[in-house]
Amino acid sequence: MGHGAGGEMMHELIDSHIAPFLPAFPVEVPLRSFDDSAVVDGIVFTTDAHTVKPLFFPGGDIGSLAVCGTVNDIAVMGARPIAMASALVLEEGLEIEVLERVMRSMGEYSEMTKVPIVTGDTKVVEKGALEGMVITTSAIGRRSFHLDHNLEIAEKYRKVSSRWLTDDNLKEGDVIIVSGMLGDHGIALLSFREGYGFESDVKSDVAPLNEVVESILEVGGAVSMKDPTRGGIANTLNEWASKSKIGIEVEEAKIPISDPVRNACELLGLDPLSIGNEGKLVVAVVPQIAEEVLGVIRESKIGKKAEIVGRATKGAGRVVLRTEVGGRRILEPPVGDPVPRIC
Amino acid sequence: MGHGAGGEMMHELIDSHIAPFLPAFPVEVPLRSFDDSAVVDGIVFTTDAHTVKPLFFPGGDIGSLAVCGTVNDIAVMGARPIAMASALVLEEGLEIEVLERVMRSMGEYSEMTKVPIVTGDTKVVEKGALEGMVITTSAIGRRSFHLDHNLEIAEKYRKVSSRWLTDDNLKEGDVIIVSGMLGDHGIALLSFREGYGFESDVKSDVAPLNEVVESILEVGGAVSMKDPTRGGIANTLNEWASKSKIGIEVEEAKIPISDPVRNACELLGLDPLSIGNEGKLVVAVVPQIAEEVLGVIRESKIGKKAEIVGRATKGAGRVVLRTEVGGRRILEPPVGDPVPRIC
Repeated sequence: MGHGAGGEMMHELIDSHIAPFLPAFPVEVPLRSFDDSAVVDGIVFTTDAHTVKPLFFPGGDIGSLAVCGTVNDIAVMGARPIAMASALVLEEGLEIEVLERVMRSMGEYSEMTKVPIVTGDTKVVEKGALEGMVITTSAIGRRSFHLDHNLEIAEKYRKVSSRWLTDDNLKEGDVIIVSGMLGDHGIALLSFREGYGFESDVKSDVAPLNEVVESILEVGGAVSMKDPTRGGIANTLNEWASKSKIGIEVEEAKIPISDPVRNACELLGLDPLSIGNEGKLVVAVVPQIAEEVLGVIRESKIGKKAEIVGRATKGAGRVVLRTEVGGRRILEPPVGDPVPRIC
Repeated sequence: MGHGAGGEMMHELIDSHIAPFLPAFPVEVPLRSFDDSAVVDGIVFTTDAHTVKPLFFPGGDIGSLAVCGTVNDIAVMGARPIAMASALVLEEGLEIEVLERVMRSMGEYSEMTKVPIVTGDTKVVEKGALEGMVITTSAIGRRSFHLDHNLEIAEKYRKVSSRWLTDDNLKEGDVIIVSGMLGDHGIALLSFREGYGFESDVKSDVAPLNEVVESILEVGGAVSMKDPTRGGIANTLNEWASKSKIGIEVEEAKIPISDPVRNACELLGLDPLSIGNEGKLVVAVVPQIAEEVLGVIRESKIGKKAEIVGRATKGAGRVVLRTEVGGRRILEPPVGDPVPRIC
């Protein structure tokens, strides 16, 4: 199961046993860049298999997750999602009421995000370990109308290499903003599963990010964005550091984490920075516009607790956490999966 | 399992318990038309979950199936596939050698079809009933360069309503061509599974159709195309008849079916017309160009055994089979799935 993590084991699986067999073609943002989405011929394209357990959890369900996860992967490239596809694998014996409840949720989030589900597939398999169903959502998007404006603003202050908000686009000095409390999604799921011996009022943060992304692009100055899902912000920051060939310094005290999540993590021996989120945004922005972008995020529904948490520094590929007592430690990407099957 | 068939039970599942919950948006070819792909803003878009059992079978494997199935769904709309996405759900304990063999196969077919796999996702679940893995492939495509020319040729002879090769595009008199032997895929899988008590040399027909589709469009005159996968040609013809509000008459003697497939079907009590194919094309073409299109199909690698099998007639939504002894019977779409988990 560790391979399913989004951490180092998953990287190894993909780098060694999947990607080498797939031929490379000249593509704007290809598979090999391992960004949130690919870009081909101006079309942004992404896919996600959702194997969440349980199907329903405080704050959401597999349906809302499947829509938001995919919409967000398109949005963080600097794009507006224009359509989704949904492939269902259903286990025999799944109650029709459960299926309908999930489809209703997908429909509500399709309505909310204004992204139509235009095509699909449905397969039935024998009862096994799927918890009833797997939903694979894919989405396509077009360049946001505001992306060029956004990049122009950034270019007032420094050269920008990528024309999309890719992981390799950070430079020394860029400011890193987190849109809100981290770890809620993973802890909400864990506390709801049987056998973990604790309860909490933590709700999943599952939410679409396409609106707040557009607002940020209208202000301008963002050079990269990610939604810190599998592997949490520990994974996000390490992706940025290694692909942009920079260092990243983050102040631990600035990272927004709620008390219940902090307590649950201590109880379970988990690092909240390695836990997946489903409605959070991490933005890298040129320092001159950072406060303005922070303001716009805080005005949005999902961004009331947004904070500037750190910045890009010299240094090749390392993420350093400055602790509250003045220490410094390396923040590694998670090796396995601290919380399996949360997305 | 009957719900997984592509027949009437699956229609009922989708029509009653899935589609009604998904909001409708104004889209060129929407979800509700249930075509092989959707079209949004000029982009052709499709998705397929592949739950085939076993993963490897005579003539192919889940990897070749996942690429061809999705490439073909784009092609039959009159489009050229430009990119694929691949989402893997792997069961714990899956041997790395098996994964690599499947990925190598996907890579080979990506190379062969010249369609890059540009984005993906990988999840791991507990061991269950998945036979090791499920692959959901999605693809996007652009309007074929030859589609307008193709429609212009058809319009020399009659009005054409849809600008894509959709299921509702047939009119009385259109000629129906099948590109080759039917039923091979399903029978190859069945004969390879344990416990069916028979063996055969039948190989799956899994093959990409994008090249032959382009050749047909260069000739012109085609009004609709489908690849008769789940539910076989019985399903394909009924989709056409009901959506185009026409009758269809097919001559049983003209339908190409190999002796081993015919024998296996007799032994198992299966109708070869209801069995899924993975490398066959069914084309509806204006009668004046039918022989020319047949010629082009026969020149292609996959079309040596192509035949004109019937035509569109007056009558609302019925498919009639003219049997070899001069009788007539209604060809119904399959109710459940004659052969589950073949795609």
